[in-house]
Amino acid sequence: MEVPSAPSAVIAQALTRIQPTSTLAGTAAATRQSELTKPPGSLGRLEDLATRIAAIRDEARPHLEQRLIVVAAGDHGVTSQGVSAYPTEVTGQMVANFLAGGAAINVLADHAGARVRVVDAGVATDTGAHPALEALRLGAGTADISVGPAMSRDLAERALAFGITLVDDERTARGLDLVGCGEMGIGNTTSAATIVAAVTGRAVATVTGRGTGIDDAMHTRKIEAIETALRVNAPAPRDGVELLSKVGGFEIGVLAGIYLGAASRRVPAVVDGLISGAAALIAVSIAPQTGDYLIASHRSPEPGHTATLEWLGLDPLLELDLRLGEGSGAALGMTLCVAATRLLDEMATFGDAGVADSDVVVEPEG
Amino acid sequence: MEVPSAPSAVIAQALTRIQPTSTLAGTAAATRQSELTKPPGSLGRLEDLATRIAAIRDEARPHLEQRLIVVAAGDHGVTSQGVSAYPTEVTGQMVANFLAGGAAINVLADHAGARVRVVDAGVATDTGAHPALEALRLGAGTADISVGPAMSRDLAERALAFGITLVDDERTARGLDLVGCGEMGIGNTTSAATIVAAVTGRAVATVTGRGTGIDDAMHTRKIEAIETALRVNAPAPRDGVELLSKVGGFEIGVLAGIYLGAASRRVPAVVDGLISGAAALIAVSIAPQTGDYLIASHRSPEPGHTATLEWLGLDPLLELDLRLGEGSGAALGMTLCVAATRLLDEMATFGDAGVADSDVVVEPEG
Repeated sequence: MEVPSAPSAVIAQALTRIQPTSTLAGTAAATRQSELTKPPGSLGRLEDLATRIAAIRDEARPHLEQRLIVVAAGDHGVTSQGVSAYPTEVTGQMVANFLAGGAAINVLADHAGARVRVVDAGVATDTGAHPALEALRLGAGTADISVGPAMSRDLAERALAFGITLVDDERTARGLDLVGCGEMGIGNTTSAATIVAAVTGRAVATVTGRGTGIDDAMHTRKIEAIETALRVNAPAPRDGVELLSKVGGFEIGVLAGIYLGAASRRVPAVVDGLISGAAALIAVSIAPQTGDYLIASHRSPEPGHTATLEWLGLDPLLELDLRLGEGSGAALGMTLCVAATRLLDEMATFGDAGVADSDVVVEPEG
Repeated sequence: MEVPSAPSAVIAQALTRIQPTSTLAGTAAATRQSELTKPPGSLGRLEDLATRIAAIRDEARPHLEQRLIVVAAGDHGVTSQGVSAYPTEVTGQMVANFLAGGAAINVLADHAGARVRVVDAGVATDTGAHPALEALRLGAGTADISVGPAMSRDLAERALAFGITLVDDERTARGLDLVGCGEMGIGNTTSAATIVAAVTGRAVATVTGRGTGIDDAMHTRKIEAIETALRVNAPAPRDGVELLSKVGGFEIGVLAGIYLGAASRRVPAVVDGLISGAAALIAVSIAPQTGDYLIASHRSPEPGHTATLEWLGLDPLLELDLRLGEGSGAALGMTLCVAATRLLDEMATFGDAGVADSDVVVEPEG
């Protein structure tokens, strides 16, 4: 894929295209729900989910045929503070694992009938060349956010523009009905928790979790690194591009761009865990209406994730203690989106099936 | 399918085959989980789910290829007490809808890659002939449980034996790796809540819900009918066959038989909502070890369902306010079983993928 040459223009153009979701299509879907052969509301949250997707797609009976998972990878200078249980090299090793098809997201994307595109947004090690790898490579990892900004504002805009362009590219090439977002980046829960603390204003200790599974000493260092990053960078909590450039990550920028692109093209976007959620905070800070196009797949045990979901006003579909990232939760959430829209589209109505509706009975039978 | 001629012998034979699940296979699966390219435990409950299924199947890396949903239908004499918002005719109409492919379970079974077999266990109206319909037909609905027993002990045994034989039949015909249970029967939440109250000893009012969506007056009549049914029949709370014959339903008996058959053939069985759960209470009352072979798909908003899950010691996978029945939740639960076992089987190990494990790093990097 071509890397966009004028990123700020790409972003500005996408923002002009973001419209409210369709009340008309949402209402048509809700009406159909009431006519399907089931007691009203008996499919619970799947009914609301299908109705929301109808409003997003501006179609009364949307078909989610073309499904994509984007896994963006990037490294983080803050790992030099000793905040992760894994070495930086693992990011590149896992990119190779994604490309070889051996990671959880490969299995779950196949399960969800979704293709996977992997973006090297800025991995520290050489990820080589591969037909399924998009080489954005904005740097060999970000700078250490506990010392100064993660990246320049220009690089932040390039990350966002790449995500937007990837969505446009997919729409043009084969259509895109549903996108799920995932990431890989050793140290990126530190960056994500910093974003969450900055946006929500919550105390750092309450939004900082154990990431891949760190011990108490590392957890303490992680909290200190985040507090230092906020003090050193003092990001404006409502300026998404500034947040991204000061305390974000290259992969987080690409995912935020995916959300903006999805909202601008009426594509529902499934948000995965903490890091994908932090990217959503950035996208919504840039264009608040983007939030209406987002679907939360699951609740992660990472404490910053619940804070993120609450700030975004999203109620997650699954609570399975998933904390892997990669888009693994998003892929499972996508299967529920497919189920919900298929039910809306394919079920018979009371009229079609010759089944009596509850409205016809007002008295007990006997 | 042939209706078994000596039901008590079929049941007795199945019970002798029910063995503990395999600790060896479960341990092998858990060991493999720790070697896969992900932080330990990061796939949350999907890891435990796959490990449980491995123990059930007695295979370290089980493949759930052959999947079946059984929808058993039956009518209930207690509807004459005015306990349901829908007329009895809807049971037969919905059976026709299942056979025509227009119901929620048809869509969700296809989504889960599962075939559907529909059993007329005892529908009040004529369900006709159809290649996909199993005609057990133990009666034109049960007798009114608020007046006397639902059915004779012989009919209860025939329902159980049919479920057991159906599993055996599937195992022989094409193999069976995963079964999900669903039902249809106007009035059957009344029978189910009666079973739940009898088994768990909870107060009737606390386990009696709104079923398909009844008003306050009907809800009061439903509670009264259940209290009367318990008083009139006085079922022994630990005798599953007696529970079934006195306050059960024909479809509930078939599902209880499916669970017994599944446990006797090492097939994981996914329990749907309140009625499928009540059938599980009966199966576990007959053969306690059956509980180890059950997987709960979801938590229904029906209050008796939570009481059932707690009694069975099952933690449901989904909380989506599903209350349709038909096996709709079970089908969604089956997709999670498939995802979990595919992850266990298909993901690369750290060794395969050349990814560094967290154990290799004990010091921070910088």
